[in-house]
Amino acid sequence: MSGRPVVTLTTDFGTGSPYVAAMKAVVLARCPEAILVDAVHEVPPFDVAAGAFLLWAATRDFGPGSVHLAVVDPGVGTGRRGLAVRAGRRCYVAPDNGLLELVLSEHEVEAAVELVAPPGASRTFEGRDVFAPAAGDLAAGRPLEQLGRPVSGLVRLPPGPPRVLWVDRFGNLVTNLKPPVAGLRINGRALLASATTFGEGRPGEPFLYTGSLGYVEVGVREDRADRVLRAGAGSPVEVI
Amino acid sequence: MSGRPVVTLTTDFGTGSPYVAAMKAVVLARCPEAILVDAVHEVPPFDVAAGAFLLWAATRDFGPGSVHLAVVDPGVGTGRRGLAVRAGRRCYVAPDNGLLELVLSEHEVEAAVELVAPPGASRTFEGRDVFAPAAGDLAAGRPLEQLGRPVSGLVRLPPGPPRVLWVDRFGNLVTNLKPPVAGLRINGRALLASATTFGEGRPGEPFLYTGSLGYVEVGVREDRADRVLRAGAGSPVEVI
Amino acid sequence: MSGRPVVTLTTDFGTGSPYVAAMKAVVLARCPEAILVDAVHEVPPFDVAAGAFLLWAATRDFGPGSVHLAVVDPGVGTGRRGLAVRAGRRCYVAPDNGLLELVLSEHEVEAAVELVAPPGASRTFEGRDVFAPAAGDLAAGRPLEQLGRPVSGLVRLPPGPPRVLWVDRFGNLVTNLKPPVAGLRINGRALLASATTFGEGRPGEPFLYTGSLGYVEVGVREDRADRVLRAGAGSPVEVI
Repeated sequence: MSGRPVVTLTTDFGTGSPYVAAMKAVVLARCPEAILVDAVHEVPPFDVAAGAFLLWAATRDFGPGSVHLAVVDPGVGTGRRGLAVRAGRRCYVAPDNGLLELVLSEHEVEAAVELVAPPGASRTFEGRDVFAPAAGDLAAGRPLEQLGRPVSGLVRLPPGPPRVLWVDRFGNLVTNLKPPVAGLRINGRALLASATTFGEGRPGEPFLYTGSLGYVEVGVREDRADRVLRAGAGSPVEVI
Repeated sequence: MSGRPVVTLTTDFGTGSPYVAAMKAVVLARCPEAILVDAVHEVPPFDVAAGAFLLWAATRDFGPGSVHLAVVDPGVGTGRRGLAVRAGRRCYVAPDNGLLELVLSEHEVEAAVELVAPPGASRTFEGRDVFAPAAGDLAAGRPLEQLGRPVSGLVRLPPGPPRVLWVDRFGNLVTNLKPPVAGLRINGRALLASATTFGEGRPGEPFLYTGSLGYVEVGVREDRADRVLRAGAGSPVEVI
Repeated sequence: MSGRPVVTLTTDFGTGSPYVAAMKAVVLARCPEAILVDAVHEVPPFDVAAGAFLLWAATRDFGPGSVHLAVVDPGVGTGRRGLAVRAGRRCYVAPDNGLLELVLSEHEVEAAVELVAPPGASRTFEGRDVFAPAAGDLAAGRPLEQLGRPVSGLVRLPPGPPRVLWVDRFGNLVTNLKPPVAGLRINGRALLASATTFGEGRPGEPFLYTGSLGYVEVGVREDRADRVLRAGAGSPVEVI
């Protein structure tokens, strides 16, 4: 890593929450040089699978040495482990609940440690008291191996059946399928791979394309695919 | 203060507003080294009491010398004073309308001055033309005492009866009560202090706990307390 | 330009989108010193006219040498040009679709080049693969003239009839009219210019004022003008 370290934050706290700023305060106290980047704070509450997708999508273009703090944590206070993991030459700090699934599908674990809660840590706000200090320490150059004892057997999410992973603001459906896919059926409607960009799609007609994230997506030129197909995050998809 | 100065921003402008960026431009013009941190821009419009809570919650973890710019200002243009206040070794720039209530409940005023609108300042956008320049000057190291004449008798908010201060994105109710509290009644339903973390709560059953902010909160494991109790920001709470 | 360069981002991606973070990663890879400022990510999807207004409003207070990356791009993938433009001593990177309309209404074009997509660029995410690299290069000090071949005849938006450009979070209506305006009629209701600040308006009564952006706005003291007048973005306005 050269230059100032990047720390991104991905949570389900919402942009209106004071807790995001509280975590940033802790990161900056440990690493005043950190460049803070809000990744996504609108992960659906407690939706680890959606968080895993959004964390991966938001952080994959950052360089080696960047630090990615992620908190989507339905099990806060239940004793699930807190992790610092290096994979793909980036560092991730997150609960051990599958939130790193897509990152770990793409990259081997280079190192993983279990974080230790400091004395006096809030049991309801580990984001500030456990995860943010670790992210700040990593940004300040502290070796990941010093943050806790080595662990293995990280929690993974089952792959699950073909489905819609996420709907973007334009109504495009991002599926969990990788190309090539000859065709899909969603809500009884058959869609064949054809257009490659929105400019080539026919207005009103859903079409398949490979999105910038490398997954098969469904779009409609000048309309919303989620509306046209009455589909949303989690909707089942059939490969045809 | 060592290192680069932090300037946080708390407003009711909404994240979609160009006015937040305009204020940042002014801060950066005065202090190019500033680290800008969005605290909360989703304060309910003109809700000074909610803003006072969110400002306090979002900024309490920042270190000495940090600067906190806050604009929730139903009285813009009416002649209410603009303030720069040092308290808890942090600096706050805000209208004198009670927005600093929770900060001043926790910390003595170390210094307070009344800001003077520069010539040509917009009367409808004092956030950019009065408050942001003061925040930038403070971040650049200018002494607070130089920003205006000393004032006292800052506007304070009445404490008000027990109630819900804020509902977080998970539906948890943050009350204005400090522990210990043996029990609460909300919408006719009695709640006893019992569980200390979400992991210990029974699914579907509301329970009391002390949140990371030090207030009594009401949560429901695997559900939303606001929905289960049909309560929201401002809902009355009875101590039992 | 002195000091660290500012790069603002204006998009219709939404604050919940991982694509904003992806663009920031690319900017930081080219210019680790950049100060990233989110301008507005809540531009209505594909609404170039609204985007042009918000881009102008959010960036007009930034200093010489600042870089402003804007992506509201219904024509992505259709072969419309990508631009880097210097105007008003600031640099703008955007599709050539009218998104720079208000900036170019205020400032002469000092230089304009057509961006070239690098090999392997995604055709569906030019924000990351074409616009962000250009913004990062500009922030790093690369001359705009080196980013592509000079172009002229930039796409402009027709001025259009008097109307509401934008509604802020308080319900105030920002029109596309410049003062002086003696009166307006909106939804059959006549409004005369009178009060100059909110403190002077009568509660519940809509009034005209010149907003901080220099346009005629309609507000209601202690209420929402959009609600009182049943008007929104795009509503027609009649000058009387």
